[in-house]
Amino acid sequence: MLGDFSYCNPTKLYFGAGAVKHLNDELPKYGKNVVLIYGGGSVKKNGIYDEVVALLESNGKDVAEIAGVMPNPTVEKLYEGMEIARRHKADLLLAVGGGSVCDYAKALAVSVNCDEDPWEKYYLRFDEPTCEVLPVGCVLTMVGTGSEMNAGAVLTNHKSKLKIGHVFADEKVMPRFSVLDPTYTLTLPHYQMVAGIYDIFSHICEQYFSGEDDNTSDYIAEGLMRSLLHSSRIANKDMKDYEARSNIMWTATWALNTLISRGKSTDWMVHMLGQAVGAYTDATHGMTLAAVTMAYFKHILPFGLAKFKRFAVNVFDVDPTGKSDAEVAEEGLKALESWMRELGLVMNISELGVTEDMLEGLADATRIQRGGYKILDRAEIIEIFKESM
Amino acid sequence: MLGDFSYCNPTKLYFGAGAVKHLNDELPKYGKNVVLIYGGGSVKKNGIYDEVVALLESNGKDVAEIAGVMPNPTVEKLYEGMEIARRHKADLLLAVGGGSVCDYAKALAVSVNCDEDPWEKYYLRFDEPTCEVLPVGCVLTMVGTGSEMNAGAVLTNHKSKLKIGHVFADEKVMPRFSVLDPTYTLTLPHYQMVAGIYDIFSHICEQYFSGEDDNTSDYIAEGLMRSLLHSSRIANKDMKDYEARSNIMWTATWALNTLISRGKSTDWMVHMLGQAVGAYTDATHGMTLAAVTMAYFKHILPFGLAKFKRFAVNVFDVDPTGKSDAEVAEEGLKALESWMRELGLVMNISELGVTEDMLEGLADATRIQRGGYKILDRAEIIEIFKESM
Repeated sequence: MLGDFSYCNPTKLYFGAGAVKHLNDELPKYGKNVVLIYGGGSVKKNGIYDEVVALLESNGKDVAEIAGVMPNPTVEKLYEGMEIARRHKADLLLAVGGGSVCDYAKALAVSVNCDEDPWEKYYLRFDEPTCEVLPVGCVLTMVGTGSEMNAGAVLTNHKSKLKIGHVFADEKVMPRFSVLDPTYTLTLPHYQMVAGIYDIFSHICEQYFSGEDDNTSDYIAEGLMRSLLHSSRIANKDMKDYEARSNIMWTATWALNTLISRGKSTDWMVHMLGQAVGAYTDATHGMTLAAVTMAYFKHILPFGLAKFKRFAVNVFDVDPTGKSDAEVAEEGLKALESWMRELGLVMNISELGVTEDMLEGLADATRIQRGGYKILDRAEIIEIFKESM
Repeated sequence: MLGDFSYCNPTKLYFGAGAVKHLNDELPKYGKNVVLIYGGGSVKKNGIYDEVVALLESNGKDVAEIAGVMPNPTVEKLYEGMEIARRHKADLLLAVGGGSVCDYAKALAVSVNCDEDPWEKYYLRFDEPTCEVLPVGCVLTMVGTGSEMNAGAVLTNHKSKLKIGHVFADEKVMPRFSVLDPTYTLTLPHYQMVAGIYDIFSHICEQYFSGEDDNTSDYIAEGLMRSLLHSSRIANKDMKDYEARSNIMWTATWALNTLISRGKSTDWMVHMLGQAVGAYTDATHGMTLAAVTMAYFKHILPFGLAKFKRFAVNVFDVDPTGKSDAEVAEEGLKALESWMRELGLVMNISELGVTEDMLEGLADATRIQRGGYKILDRAEIIEIFKESM
């Protein structure tokens, strides 16, 4: 554990079947005006919307709505929400949905009282909020992003073809509370479930594959990966397995709430590559990550050999006896690929709609990270996208 | 992951060499009257006291002191501190020391504004605070208890020969902030260092060895144990190894801040046995745990065989090929014992001052837990103490 850091994660989590009843503990802490935020309407079909609205009503709240938050929320949608929240004089933003809806609520929380253009301030300049930040609560219905317990918010700007995530340093941006009910995730389509699972796995990898020092965070990361491999295999066979789905939900939260990045440089290159694909194709986030991972890992393996070897042995139980480090490391990547195929993840970007003529644009849209085992240049980024076709 | 739970841990942690400077970020948040709490005076010898006092002064604080908090803080010392904190109209309690000093500060925080006798209310009836809880900050100088990020406080009552821990449910009892500077721990004697390491390991085990369900918490626990085994071996050879000592410090915090107990029943029997020994002998806490562990684990092994087997394989890398479950599990316990002896832990209670005539009294002082693989009766407790002699 080298380097100095601070850690603070005050989000209160209510976990378990029926946990939404704890809105009764939280809603009284805030003023009357609530803005309820949700996505495409699946929460209306599965009854979660009705449950939440009933609790808002019984707590005497005056509710305005922002509906139709899309899977990759746009800056235009943010501007629209700012109008609604301002007009309603919002005391609390309540997100009901997956990571996109939570992210959107947090982006809104730092924008409602902001005098500047939030895209420029938070996503181009990466400034911290200087205005009052509205409190956010989440009722999570999809699993993967960890948005329920962190200060991150990804937005997409279609005009400039950019999908950018800002992880705010200010813990006031974190949700004040989040409701995590694994039963809410049981009705998701298989495609969404496995995309979420891979998003979680990628988050862990992107913090794990950096640094050469010894670090407790890496041991915790290995535990989370082992748990996820185990539970995902059960859930892949039986999507209704509550135990497996609840473990996946809990792993997702801890994969990206800053814990396992403490003391680490981290390398978010897979997300940068995947987000570029997302900005061009609007493909499901987790699938964009899966589709670029193997090419990226194969590319950086020689530069992070010791860690890829450790990954093979400690996460995938590869037996290192009588093998070279490179052989062990490559066997680990094969095991990873085999698990990804078992889940049915999308393993190339062509399948997500990427065509040859987009490659230069994708490279332009890819933000280069500096925390990993190899800092990529533009030519390498294009090569990785080509390998991923 | 079965069962419902909530999780909230708002303590802000400042980690790293020189982290005490962050008192400048925290002190301005509180009123003028600070009660500075410390132990036997080692903080005066190593300069930490002077550093903290200088920061209190430059932040314009009016400071009263409670000195001489003992390794197993007593209820009499609590009464004395209540007088001081009341007289000083304390706005903040600042603990500078190890787990005992932090525990004491938290016990004081819930007692200063309490109308009833705190021993009766919190330690005999296990009530939650109904009064205003004073804010606590910690500057940690010893590692092991996790007190810097939890709501637990252990007190000893010499008159009734009871040492009782209360883990408060109310997150307001948790420290508002804690400073974790690994360099502060470098000057500890070897005996204190390894006792702290074993305290950490025991905390993890006591949450791990319960339940038969599949649970992400257990995977995180295994990661923490592997990290601790690794770092403790390095620190045992070179106490000045900053990387190892910092990993140990960080592991200690996560071993007992409620994370790895989420969704678990937990079994604190080793602490119950050890605390009885502590109440009779005033021995170092971690050593009392080490001295009773092997007898307890051997006793419950047949009832938790599957978990002890998993422990052997996942934590101590025992190769299970061609062995019975019991053989694998026993090999795991041998590996544990061998690591404990390598560290130089006290492996029996006679060495800590327990004599045959105390055994009945020890059994009386042992609170029976109900979360583990075997609920002990009084005869079994006496048997375990005898085995531990």
